[in-house]
Amino acid sequence: VEALLATEGTLPVNLKFLFEGQEEIGSPDLLDFVTAQRERLACDLVVSADGMQWDVSHPAIWVGLKGLCSLEIDVNGANQDLHSGIHGGMVQNPIHVLAGLIASLRNPEGRITIEGFYDSVVDLTEEDRKRMALVPFSAEDEAERLGVNSLVSEPGYTPQEHAWARPTVEVNGIWGGYQGGGTKTVLPNSAHAKITCRLVPDQNPDDTVDAIRQHLESRVPAGVTVSVKPGREGANPYRITSDHPGNEIAHAVLEEVYGKEPYYVWTGGTIPFCALMLQQLGVHTVNFGFQLEDEQLHAPNEFIRLYNFQRGQGAYIRLLQTIGEKGLSPK
Amino acid sequence: VEALLATEGTLPVNLKFLFEGQEEIGSPDLLDFVTAQRERLACDLVVSADGMQWDVSHPAIWVGLKGLCSLEIDVNGANQDLHSGIHGGMVQNPIHVLAGLIASLRNPEGRITIEGFYDSVVDLTEEDRKRMALVPFSAEDEAERLGVNSLVSEPGYTPQEHAWARPTVEVNGIWGGYQGGGTKTVLPNSAHAKITCRLVPDQNPDDTVDAIRQHLESRVPAGVTVSVKPGREGANPYRITSDHPGNEIAHAVLEEVYGKEPYYVWTGGTIPFCALMLQQLGVHTVNFGFQLEDEQLHAPNEFIRLYNFQRGQGAYIRLLQTIGEKGLSPK
Repeated sequence: VEALLATEGTLPVNLKFLFEGQEEIGSPDLLDFVTAQRERLACDLVVSADGMQWDVSHPAIWVGLKGLCSLEIDVNGANQDLHSGIHGGMVQNPIHVLAGLIASLRNPEGRITIEGFYDSVVDLTEEDRKRMALVPFSAEDEAERLGVNSLVSEPGYTPQEHAWARPTVEVNGIWGGYQGGGTKTVLPNSAHAKITCRLVPDQNPDDTVDAIRQHLESRVPAGVTVSVKPGREGANPYRITSDHPGNEIAHAVLEEVYGKEPYYVWTGGTIPFCALMLQQLGVHTVNFGFQLEDEQLHAPNEFIRLYNFQRGQGAYIRLLQTIGEKGLSPK
Repeated sequence: VEALLATEGTLPVNLKFLFEGQEEIGSPDLLDFVTAQRERLACDLVVSADGMQWDVSHPAIWVGLKGLCSLEIDVNGANQDLHSGIHGGMVQNPIHVLAGLIASLRNPEGRITIEGFYDSVVDLTEEDRKRMALVPFSAEDEAERLGVNSLVSEPGYTPQEHAWARPTVEVNGIWGGYQGGGTKTVLPNSAHAKITCRLVPDQNPDDTVDAIRQHLESRVPAGVTVSVKPGREGANPYRITSDHPGNEIAHAVLEEVYGKEPYYVWTGGTIPFCALMLQQLGVHTVNFGFQLEDEQLHAPNEFIRLYNFQRGQGAYIRLLQTIGEKGLSPK
C-alpha cells in the first residue's frame, strides 16, 4: 500500500483492513466483532493472506474448504468393572456396543450410513471434477509416501475427490478397559470415542451432530446407556466458484507473476473465517496466499521464506491494480 | 488325616497329596510336574479344596468351569498420525477398521458370529438346565445390583445359562488415537484391542484363537494391516456330571453336614488345574471347598473364616470315610 501511494499517489480501490490475531486459539471473538462491525466492514470482496502456493513455481487458488463438527460418545454399562468369567455373557460389554455403533456410521465400502448425512451435500459438478483432475496427484505415490498398501475412497469418487470435496466421519480416538501389558480378564464398564466430521457445502455442523446423535441413540442396545456430547468446535464449510470475479482477477495476476495458470485446489482443512465472512457480510473471500507446505503452518517455528514474502508483495500490488482496472462484476 | 489315624488307626482310602503353590502366578510348572510324575500321581479321583459354599447355610458343587484364551489385535495404517482434513477420506482409519472387526465377532442379538466358534461346543442338556434353574438367581435383582437397565444373553439362553455355561468373546480393552480433553482432528495410524474368550467343553484355546484369527484376517479391508497375537493364557474348559461317583459322595456328605442338598453350580471362571488333571491323569476333580464369596479370593487379605475351616475339616473326614465305604464305581 505504501509503495502504491508513493508511486501513484492514490490507491486503485477502497481498502479496509481486518487483522485477526486469535486464529491459534480458535478466534473466540471474531464472530462477535464482525457482527458488531458489519457496516464498517461492508465490502465487495474479502482477500485473505491465508493460502498457499502449489509449489515454488506454481500458483494455486483454494476453491473449497471443509467445515467441522465434533462430538464424544460415552457408553456406560455396569456400575463397576466386572469379572469376565462371572458376568461375561449376562452383562453387556460397552466396548462391543461402541464398536457396533462406530461400525454403523460407515459401510465397509466407505459410504457414510448416518441417516440424512448427505441430504444437504452439494455434489461435485463435472466442471469441479475436471479442474480437480488437472491438479497433479498420484494415488500410488501418495500411498507409498504414507506407508499404506492402498488409498481408499467413497464409492464413485477418487481418493483425491473424497479427501478434497466429500464429507468424512473420523474416529479420532477410542478408549475403554485395560490397555496395559499382558491380559486382564475384565468386563469393562465404559467405553469412549471422539469423533470429528469434515463437512462440505451445504452441511451445517449443528445439524450434522444432531443427525449423528439420532443415528446413535436409535441403536442403543439393552444393558448400556449412551451419551453423545457435542464438542465446542463447529465451522461451516466454504466454497467459491473458480469463475468468481475475485478468482478470475487472482487467476490473471498469478498467471502474470508465475507465468503459469494456477491450479484450483480444495482442501479438507477448515478456515472458519471464510464461511463466517460470507455469512455475516455476504461476500466471498479470495485466499491469496504465498506460503509453502513446509513452512510449519500452526506449528512451532512457523516461517515464511523472504522470497515468498516479496513475491506476495508484488502480487498484492498487481491484485489491487487489476481490481481497480476491471472491477468485480461478473463478466 | 491325623484325626482319622488317631481315632481309627488307619485311613479308609489310599491318599496322595499334591500341594500347588503357584496358582497366583499362573502355575507355570504344574503341567511339567504332573506330566513327569504321572505314575506316582495315578488315582481314582482328585479332590480339590478350591470351591465354595453357596452361602453359609447352603452347600454347592461346581460342575462346570470355563476355559480361557486370549489375543490382541493390532490394526496399523499409515506410517504416522495424519491430519483428518488433509487425508481424511483417502486414508483408511484403523479405529474404524477395528470397530468393524469387533462388531463382526457377535451379532446384535448376542450370538457369536466367528466361523466355527460353536463347532465343538457341547450344548446344555435338559437335565443341566433343570439343575441350573434350581439355583436361586434373579435377573432383575442382579441387574439392579450391577446398575444396568437389563441383563443380556445369547438368544435361546437365559443370562444365567449364558454366563455359566455358554462361551463368550469379550473385548477387555481398546485404544487408539487421541484420548485427552477436547478435540484433536487426528486420523490415527493404529488401533488396538485385547480380547479374551471363556470356553466351554469341548472348545480348545488354541483352535479358538485360530478361528478368530482366520475370521479377522479374512475381513481386513484395503489400506491397513492387521496382526493377531495370541496371549500366553490358555486353559481348557472343564465339566463333571452331577452324577459322577465323586459328586454323588460329595452330595451325600454335604447333605449330612448342612442338612440341605447342594446346588450344582457352574461358573464362567477358570480353574486350569481341573482340566489339566483330567487330561494328564484321566480322572475328574471334585471341587470340595468351603470358602465364601466375600473371603477375598485372589485379592489382598484373602482369608477363610475359622468356622468354615472347621466345617471343612469335618466334611473331609466324612468324605474319606464315605469313599472308603461306598467306593467310586458308578452305581
